[in-house]
Amino acid sequence: MKYQVIIIGGGPAGYTAAETAGKAGLSVLLIEKNSLGGVCLNEGCIPTKTLLYSAKTYDSARHAAKYGIVVPETFADVPKIIARKNKVVRKLVLGIKAKLTACNVKIAPGEAFIINKNTVRCADETFECDNLLICTGSETIIPSIYGIEGVDYWTHREALNCTEIPKTMVVVGGGVIGMEFAAYFNSMGSQVTVIEMQDEILGGMDKELSALLRAEYGKRGVKFLLSTSVTQLSQDAQGITVTCQSGETEQLILADKLLMSVGRRPVTQGFGLENLGLKLTERNHPVVTNKMETSQPGVYVCGDLTGFSLLAHTAVREAEVAIHTILGKDDVMSYSAIPGVIYTNPEFAGVGATEESLKAKGDSYKCIKIPMAYSGRFVAENEGVNGWCKVIVSDDNVILGAHVLGNPASEIITLAGMAIEQQLTVSQWMRIVVPHPTVGEIFREALATL
Amino acid sequence: MKYQVIIIGGGPAGYTAAETAGKAGLSVLLIEKNSLGGVCLNEGCIPTKTLLYSAKTYDSARHAAKYGIVVPETFADVPKIIARKNKVVRKLVLGIKAKLTACNVKIAPGEAFIINKNTVRCADETFECDNLLICTGSETIIPSIYGIEGVDYWTHREALNCTEIPKTMVVVGGGVIGMEFAAYFNSMGSQVTVIEMQDEILGGMDKELSALLRAEYGKRGVKFLLSTSVTQLSQDAQGITVTCQSGETEQLILADKLLMSVGRRPVTQGFGLENLGLKLTERNHPVVTNKMETSQPGVYVCGDLTGFSLLAHTAVREAEVAIHTILGKDDVMSYSAIPGVIYTNPEFAGVGATEESLKAKGDSYKCIKIPMAYSGRFVAENEGVNGWCKVIVSDDNVILGAHVLGNPASEIITLAGMAIEQQLTVSQWMRIVVPHPTVGEIFREALATL
Repeated sequence: MKYQVIIIGGGPAGYTAAETAGKAGLSVLLIEKNSLGGVCLNEGCIPTKTLLYSAKTYDSARHAAKYGIVVPETFADVPKIIARKNKVVRKLVLGIKAKLTACNVKIAPGEAFIINKNTVRCADETFECDNLLICTGSETIIPSIYGIEGVDYWTHREALNCTEIPKTMVVVGGGVIGMEFAAYFNSMGSQVTVIEMQDEILGGMDKELSALLRAEYGKRGVKFLLSTSVTQLSQDAQGITVTCQSGETEQLILADKLLMSVGRRPVTQGFGLENLGLKLTERNHPVVTNKMETSQPGVYVCGDLTGFSLLAHTAVREAEVAIHTILGKDDVMSYSAIPGVIYTNPEFAGVGATEESLKAKGDSYKCIKIPMAYSGRFVAENEGVNGWCKVIVSDDNVILGAHVLGNPASEIITLAGMAIEQQLTVSQWMRIVVPHPTVGEIFREALATL
Repeated sequence: MKYQVIIIGGGPAGYTAAETAGKAGLSVLLIEKNSLGGVCLNEGCIPTKTLLYSAKTYDSARHAAKYGIVVPETFADVPKIIARKNKVVRKLVLGIKAKLTACNVKIAPGEAFIINKNTVRCADETFECDNLLICTGSETIIPSIYGIEGVDYWTHREALNCTEIPKTMVVVGGGVIGMEFAAYFNSMGSQVTVIEMQDEILGGMDKELSALLRAEYGKRGVKFLLSTSVTQLSQDAQGITVTCQSGETEQLILADKLLMSVGRRPVTQGFGLENLGLKLTERNHPVVTNKMETSQPGVYVCGDLTGFSLLAHTAVREAEVAIHTILGKDDVMSYSAIPGVIYTNPEFAGVGATEESLKAKGDSYKCIKIPMAYSGRFVAENEGVNGWCKVIVSDDNVILGAHVLGNPASEIITLAGMAIEQQLTVSQWMRIVVPHPTVGEIFREALATL
């Protein structure tokens, strides 16, 4: 059977590509070996946010007195939280399935193997295609720490299904995944220690606000060991012993659970990628054009496999660009305004340039930083909580970046993303009327100080 | 004493104008007879949103079990809610005062009286100015219903300070103010009846979504009487009797409290506006240019007094335009993307064209309507709750309007506002990368169905 498009991998890149292509009338085969939705939907973005919303509800109940609401006691029914998370995931997986079916996408469950750029095998069938989209995503990196094979460590997968909150836990890696789980387990009552090799958590995000988020969780009892590496792991009846080292100092931490979240890497093995003879970058990712096309015409790579940002929303947009290209529609991928969000409580989000990235390039810029209390709504909804908004503009007042620590950073950062992608100047942005009172007004307040 | 700018009224228009002018180095006198911040900050936007956030926290605690959080009992400490509201207002008023002082704005407490366009009296002093900005705002309309003078009715002012929740209450007027108080008192346990003269609540907002919001509050026990007018009021020891009429049918409702919220009108009397001889519209509002200048050069009108939208955020933008004009900076007021928000739970927000406004003009358009469940984050955070997103585009795919029923509509609607103000097309908007998972993705989901 021959398809106009075969897509390998049913995560955000794959299902978006399939839907876009199917709607446009192309014949599409989507091959997925696990559950539709990929890591993002099944064991990433969606389940973590579902758990974090339960944690937020819990936090809200415990702090309700600040807002005049009396809650004499509250506790978390963790098995119910996990069951609800599973229900949410099931519902959304079914939603994707329904959408794909509605646009006539054929779904092949199983492992794909690429014979050549026009031939893919799945189970015992061989399929032909005009265009091949490879969206195999990424996998958890497990660092080769001495003793790790003798330890029952968690990845995000086990952490997502934990029905009994550990008393103590160590999180190795203070990136997005590590911090979101640290936040969740902290809310749920664990004593959490985060170990990070770099000198600050959340590398790539605004460093100053990252430090403020760390300080906030520090106040809530999370311990942070920065510039610290794990050198040895062992386990006995008492729990897991994590040996770590910072400079000359060695330290032992005993914990009930250990979460490994040092990062993810593209999945490049086991499905015949090598049979395509693609041109690779020095980090072994396929080279792609800004149309997501590889060195082989008709072969496209989208999502984590490109190694660009390992974010679902990047994957979605890349998939649209690839399919538009196949359809002959003019479209190009832009990486200038890819937001990054950490769904802690408070949320932390950023888009565009950071001070660090501009300094590294030697670019000059103006930076405005104001407290979130400049937004009346933030004050109304955040008793005793502070936050910060940072906006970065070029010398000629073009918006370059924005960074927000405070709820709902995830939802308002998109506005800055649109401003950056549209290359708005300060005065153009200031002409947009923003409803009052909203937290989103914070950007206007920041720009008004210029 | 002579100023470059005299501003009458310290609400959002007045304080924004004063800050903008002061920062630019102009000498500014701001005259305010009550508290800085005007109705918006002292008895409008901010205090209502503060109360509504307490109500939301209360709702969240009562429904926490949906998210696996057990809250055996909860109750509202209403005096504490009111005290906190007062504290938030005080904090923000002080914030405005500090900002104005920092940019050398002179504040005159007292009533202003305009002698001529260059002379204003306040208390026993007379001040001269080059430019006059009039931002006197609006006041509550009290309709002349038979018997009203014998009834202790509430306006928003009394409702905001209510420390004992009434068992039953009637809200006359189902606009924004009426609906926000209906929502608050419903959450707090009152049996609320909303009486609205029109055939739907929230005139001016998308009618279909207004009806859905009404249905939602109907399920929670709020009674709605549409196409109904109040013909008589009386009060005795049992409470207030509201006589109302719909068509031929008369109905009596007995309630503990009565909130009058039929609307607001610009304040035009009592401060010498007539001495300026301004050109007026047929509804007696001063005619202004798109630079907010009246028929008298050097006299500007901003905010509710223009009669355009009676919204704080419109006032803020108008004030900026007026001061920029005085400063010789090119700027014009645009009313094409003024968002409207109702801070019920769920929130309801809209910006740009409605189907109703386009039909009235006879314009053709395309309308996309999708359930909020298309957003994974909405599903994660809204167990058993539905919502809708509607996006309206022109035949050539330019964004004309967007309407959202579902949290946090207030914060995400700004994105649509920016798209409309920038006259983005569907494909331009689709190129903006939106963080996943967010509720704001709903717009992309809607546009993707085109």
